[in-house]
Amino acid sequence: MDSKIGRPRFVIEAAEAESMAKQSGFASAAELLPSLVKSAQALARPPISNYHVGTVGLGSTGRIFFGANIEFPGLPLNNSIHAEQFLVTNLSLNAEPSLPCFAVSAAPCGHCRQFLQELRAAPGIRILITDDNNNHHHHLSSAADDNNHRLRRRYQDLSTILPHRFGPDDLLSKDVPLILERHNNDLALVIPPLPLENGNLNGGGGNRGKEEDLKLEALEAANRSHAPYSKCPSGVALMDCEGKVYRGSYMESAAYNPSLGPVQAAIVAYIVGGGAGYERIVAAALVEKEGVPVMQEATARLLLATVAPKCELKVFHCRSKRQ
Amino acid sequence: MDSKIGRPRFVIEAAEAESMAKQSGFASAAELLPSLVKSAQALARPPISNYHVGTVGLGSTGRIFFGANIEFPGLPLNNSIHAEQFLVTNLSLNAEPSLPCFAVSAAPCGHCRQFLQELRAAPGIRILITDDNNNHHHHLSSAADDNNHRLRRRYQDLSTILPHRFGPDDLLSKDVPLILERHNNDLALVIPPLPLENGNLNGGGGNRGKEEDLKLEALEAANRSHAPYSKCPSGVALMDCEGKVYRGSYMESAAYNPSLGPVQAAIVAYIVGGGAGYERIVAAALVEKEGVPVMQEATARLLLATVAPKCELKVFHCRSKRQ
Ligand SMILES: [Zn+2]
Ligand SMILES: [Zn+2]
Repeated sequence: MDSKIGRPRFVIEAAEAESMAKQSGFASAAELLPSLVKSAQALARPPISNYHVGTVGLGSTGRIFFGANIEFPGLPLNNSIHAEQFLVTNLSLNAEPSLPCFAVSAAPCGHCRQFLQELRAAPGIRILITDDNNNHHHHLSSAADDNNHRLRRRYQDLSTILPHRFGPDDLLSKDVPLILERHNNDLALVIPPLPLENGNLNGGGGNRGKEEDLKLEALEAANRSHAPYSKCPSGVALMDCEGKVYRGSYMESAAYNPSLGPVQAAIVAYIVGGGAGYERIVAAALVEKEGVPVMQEATARLLLATVAPKCELKVFHCRSKRQ
Repeated sequence: MDSKIGRPRFVIEAAEAESMAKQSGFASAAELLPSLVKSAQALARPPISNYHVGTVGLGSTGRIFFGANIEFPGLPLNNSIHAEQFLVTNLSLNAEPSLPCFAVSAAPCGHCRQFLQELRAAPGIRILITDDNNNHHHHLSSAADDNNHRLRRRYQDLSTILPHRFGPDDLLSKDVPLILERHNNDLALVIPPLPLENGNLNGGGGNRGKEEDLKLEALEAANRSHAPYSKCPSGVALMDCEGKVYRGSYMESAAYNPSLGPVQAAIVAYIVGGGAGYERIVAAALVEKEGVPVMQEATARLLLATVAPKCELKVFHCRSKRQ
């Protein structure tokens, strides 16, 4: 299958993370993170700003995860994926249950501080800002800057950089799952999958089988979607020209605007999964509810048409099995 | 012309603000603001969340401005306008040079704390959170809640709720104008306005004249647009069924995603200008540059088609006169 040699890495397994920390003389993997931020920045795809943001997080399982910012020319800027959102999506894709700490190249923006509130115990997430930014305004650094820089290179709680938070606690009861926690939205397709007459779903390579597969992957993504505020979950599955599938779940923010769209989440999955140029994305499926207040279809269509013009998007509707 | 009786108010003139404060026994207009927050909340249009956020700001000219949250069903949530963004747009429409302080019904979300960074001297903006929210989870308030509530009902600096900010200082030199400061982007239409053969522009009521007028208003909005990061300014003008025009300028955030789109800004102008239902919006013009990294057209088209299906949008391209 895929060779991992020469391919950018987005996850480091726990054993390797531990041995890397030891080799570098760090007492813990958390101390190792800042030294990996520059390699995270190299993963960014920011053709508009050319401003590379990288972040490296340590999961509670001891694995290390990378995140970087992604921008899409030809559209409004609110389609952008921030490094911290990429990181959270990467953890979610890998079923990592929590994010105790991360290091990041620049001070997280307010949008990201807000998005991070969707994690359980968000106020206690430890964040270290390396200030390894790549802008040109800080070349002449003063003694005060240096001091400020040193002060920033310490882990501090998310609550210290977003006090008086507005978040899930203001709107949800405690038993509602948050991002990184297990979601099952109990959704079923309105038009169920076709009965399989000619062989099984994944075998044979027939187009009909691949389409059905993509649809079911998008349904699974919708079932894992975090949409407790609008109750309008959605999911996207992308297929590349080799038939490999990448799944992304819509993730909602209590503050609405910082929500991450399902196409964005699937593009993170595509990048993490080794996807190269977006022109290799040839097919996509979106699953969402019909006639609900939050609808992704038109925007998903627009984003995919702009980013991956060869990609054909099919949209399927679902409903809750619970009612 | 329009009667102001019974119409919701979005601006209170300085003399009236002062006399209102005196009548209510407050030493200053700033102390009056919290008592107006509930009336600001009543201006919200949140059909998705039904969560009414209201904010009341005092400008440096002594005028008082209102803001409220606006949501658009049928689209992704990142199309929403937050109360604080509405407030800033309202100040901008009224050429208010700065926002020393405001009161708001709920803790500003991170997205808004970030958007506010686009104002000069943002860290020193004084904010008071009344916590007059309308959700149902806080009915059983504890003594600790009450105490927290009292603590919040004080003005505090924006820098205390968004320390270690990422903002204009990280990307721009000091002489670049920020939001509420005078912008002139020196843009000209690629295809210049038609020569006027049959009477003047605004007179006569001919359709051609109205279309030309709308185009020029959108150009003016683009000239006032705050887009120092992408250098892709844009502007929208809306026309209602009575021929009244409302102008909105795109406002960019250093952090990209919290940027406010030109249609959103024009909708704020429509609401502030006394516009009622969106179905009364019948025509729109968008002016933006051609082939640039940030393009509003497709998203503007989508938002208007969803919000105001009767509205016909025309798009015009512009270029910088400076090169
Ligand atoms: Zn961010
Ligand atoms: Zn907000």
